[in-house]
Amino acid sequence: MPAEIQTPLILVNFKTYSEATGKKAVELAKKAEKVSLETKVSIGVAPQFTDIAAVASSTEIPVFAQHIDPIEPGSHTGHVLADAVKEAGAIGTLINHSERQLKLSDIDMAVRVAREKKLVSVVCANNQTVSAAAAALKPDIIAVEPPELIGTGIPVSKAKPEVVLNTVKLVKEVNPKVTVLCGAGISHGEDVTAALRLGTQGVLVASSIVKAKDQYRILREFAEATKI
Amino acid sequence: MPAEIQTPLILVNFKTYSEATGKKAVELAKKAEKVSLETKVSIGVAPQFTDIAAVASSTEIPVFAQHIDPIEPGSHTGHVLADAVKEAGAIGTLINHSERQLKLSDIDMAVRVAREKKLVSVVCANNQTVSAAAAALKPDIIAVEPPELIGTGIPVSKAKPEVVLNTVKLVKEVNPKVTVLCGAGISHGEDVTAALRLGTQGVLVASSIVKAKDQYRILREFAEATKI
Amino acid sequence: MPAEIQTPLILVNFKTYSEATGKKAVELAKKAEKVSLETKVSIGVAPQFTDIAAVASSTEIPVFAQHIDPIEPGSHTGHVLADAVKEAGAIGTLINHSERQLKLSDIDMAVRVAREKKLVSVVCANNQTVSAAAAALKPDIIAVEPPELIGTGIPVSKAKPEVVLNTVKLVKEVNPKVTVLCGAGISHGEDVTAALRLGTQGVLVASSIVKAKDQYRILREFAEATKI
Amino acid sequence: MPAEIQTPLILVNFKTYSEATGKKAVELAKKAEKVSLETKVSIGVAPQFTDIAAVASSTEIPVFAQHIDPIEPGSHTGHVLADAVKEAGAIGTLINHSERQLKLSDIDMAVRVAREKKLVSVVCANNQTVSAAAAALKPDIIAVEPPELIGTGIPVSKAKPEVVLNTVKLVKEVNPKVTVLCGAGISHGEDVTAALRLGTQGVLVASSIVKAKDQYRILREFAEATKI
Repeated sequence: MPAEIQTPLILVNFKTYSEATGKKAVELAKKAEKVSLETKVSIGVAPQFTDIAAVASSTEIPVFAQHIDPIEPGSHTGHVLADAVKEAGAIGTLINHSERQLKLSDIDMAVRVAREKKLVSVVCANNQTVSAAAAALKPDIIAVEPPELIGTGIPVSKAKPEVVLNTVKLVKEVNPKVTVLCGAGISHGEDVTAALRLGTQGVLVASSIVKAKDQYRILREFAEATKI
Repeated sequence: MPAEIQTPLILVNFKTYSEATGKKAVELAKKAEKVSLETKVSIGVAPQFTDIAAVASSTEIPVFAQHIDPIEPGSHTGHVLADAVKEAGAIGTLINHSERQLKLSDIDMAVRVAREKKLVSVVCANNQTVSAAAAALKPDIIAVEPPELIGTGIPVSKAKPEVVLNTVKLVKEVNPKVTVLCGAGISHGEDVTAALRLGTQGVLVASSIVKAKDQYRILREFAEATKI
Repeated sequence: MPAEIQTPLILVNFKTYSEATGKKAVELAKKAEKVSLETKVSIGVAPQFTDIAAVASSTEIPVFAQHIDPIEPGSHTGHVLADAVKEAGAIGTLINHSERQLKLSDIDMAVRVAREKKLVSVVCANNQTVSAAAAALKPDIIAVEPPELIGTGIPVSKAKPEVVLNTVKLVKEVNPKVTVLCGAGISHGEDVTAALRLGTQGVLVASSIVKAKDQYRILREFAEATKI
Repeated sequence: MPAEIQTPLILVNFKTYSEATGKKAVELAKKAEKVSLETKVSIGVAPQFTDIAAVASSTEIPVFAQHIDPIEPGSHTGHVLADAVKEAGAIGTLINHSERQLKLSDIDMAVRVAREKKLVSVVCANNQTVSAAAAALKPDIIAVEPPELIGTGIPVSKAKPEVVLNTVKLVKEVNPKVTVLCGAGISHGEDVTAALRLGTQGVLVASSIVKAKDQYRILREFAEATKI
């Protein structure tokens, strides 16, 4: 794991939720920063591309892009350049989120580009086999998220503990340096605790925080729950 | 054409060129603004997503996104939300650039989303037939760019004047309200003039400006060349 | 409309249903041929690529591919070449079905390739605006199918008659030579009749026939229902 | 390796070459069968979807599809169903060829579908890292082909022997049961021999055979060259 971030890590994906767009992205990031300072737990945020600069200049917490394209500078209109998210203030990026999947060779190239630009790479995978495959590409982090649980409130750490356990096992066999997060359905502090007890080093979360009535409270609950 | 922008229009696509990323995007936009103020010619810029906010807050010229996705707020990790580019300060967006092409139904939806969010829609097309098809979707602007000429320095207005003429004719037949720009290979002021003489109301340009040794000088040349 | 096929046309899309794969594709095509001969109504079938040759050599009815790629012969592993479906016996092809959508420029190219190879092109569209856009590409046939009704048994001709009416109107404005079919939810003979009364020249159907307990009976019902 | 095929294996990809479409596909497959019988070397062919049935019913050699989609029977117009290629006579399939690449999770699913339908899965990869990733998905065969060499006549076994060596090593570390082929630029018998000496169990070839003036002669040369 790169020095910029510590584990256990709570990584909050802002998706394209209106509750986390523009000014609201900055507000949510500030709440995450507050909780991180209060609890000494590492919390990262992944806002939309357009909000990276404002979030990064308004807070001290690690900021991730939600995606980068497997490209170098050049003629790539409408694409997302690693250099650009880096210069905007991101220290890492999601790659291959289930809502923004890539061809295998493009994941390989995106991980290489991230490594070259010193961006922390978080490759998302939908199951344990795909996690093992992704581990061979040597990203910094793999986040396993069974897509059928995303946004359901049914935590992967409870519904499919064997997927989490096997992902940790298979990923470490292929590449012991890779950090494993898990996501999908994480809604309560106990789900976070369960994820860590299954051998992960953190969680990738979205709606349970972004769409919470009291974002601060649930962030705090998640952060406390990492102290096991 | 929406009130925000006037014709003739010079629209500068920053692509993912390193010469137009981050701080350099803001610098280039400022040069464009200077030329626009000096010449009273409308110049728009399309920086990367991550640079929209900085460019929009540093200049008064029209800022376009290079792409939006055909989505509403929600679970769309790594996608580009019209609301987000709007809140960052864009007044319009390219859609379906030859380097970021979309399915037909997605172009239709992206144009609808842009209209709803009051973003000026610039749909790119590779030839006259596709331009006519795009016109049926009622975007504000169509930019015809034969992809085989992009970045070549061979201007479409010289190499394929019939494509430009026919695009204007066919687009107007389908929808007379649509503004037509042309692009690809525009390198000199005379290419801009030729484009306008062929019936377009402006040009979509990229490398000839972004990669110029003296960006200001070539911007100025293009702006003057619109005064025919 | 090309000479190979007549209107009204009932075009049966076999999709990748197991009830219409391999030998069962041939059996279903033979039933369609029987009904066509008995009723003198034109019935076409669109089996999977692997079944085109067997269906075409076992029956006399028009056979369509479900898709072609916008390519010429060459290095296109895993793609579908117009020449290949032609040589296998197809006389036409669907293009841009809602389950196999293409970029706009690729639809344009696929229609051109079909025209060059003398394959009847049936471009599918999800709504009236997209139908109008598709008409500008000059295919032989446009099939409008609101995807939200596909497979529901709720007929487009009843649920969204205005979509069908407007499609016919808009398509004819752009290109009066284009034949319009409609699809999605067509389940009973009366839905076929309604489609024709709305100005279409036939229907594109799938599950209501392929998954029928008695495929012959429903084919016959549809064919009789065209006699208005 | 499944019992249906033996190593060393020469697998001939017909792509969408006109020299290997329709009747010519059958003719080429018969030449491959002749050489296979004469030399006792295993030769497989991968014709277009539309030609699988004719090739499989005209020869006894192993026939592969060039691609399958990661789907079960259902509403997948224009897609390629494992059941359909199997019923047409294929015994295996390429997956993720560099000209028909898939998302990582779709490769995983396509390999599972192939396994379930008892089709031999040949996953293509563009480099050694991607080959290692693919090995974690447990396909039967991995074919490594640096895309920059495809069709060049510059053999991977000569130009990039370390890619071939490392692929064999990395794949076997992840999954020792996986057979490794190599491809790209294989033009002469000596390239085949070199590929085997580097630890592969065969080659994936295309233009050097399909576009040869004397297809039989070069097939024979390749087959003899496996006898090292």
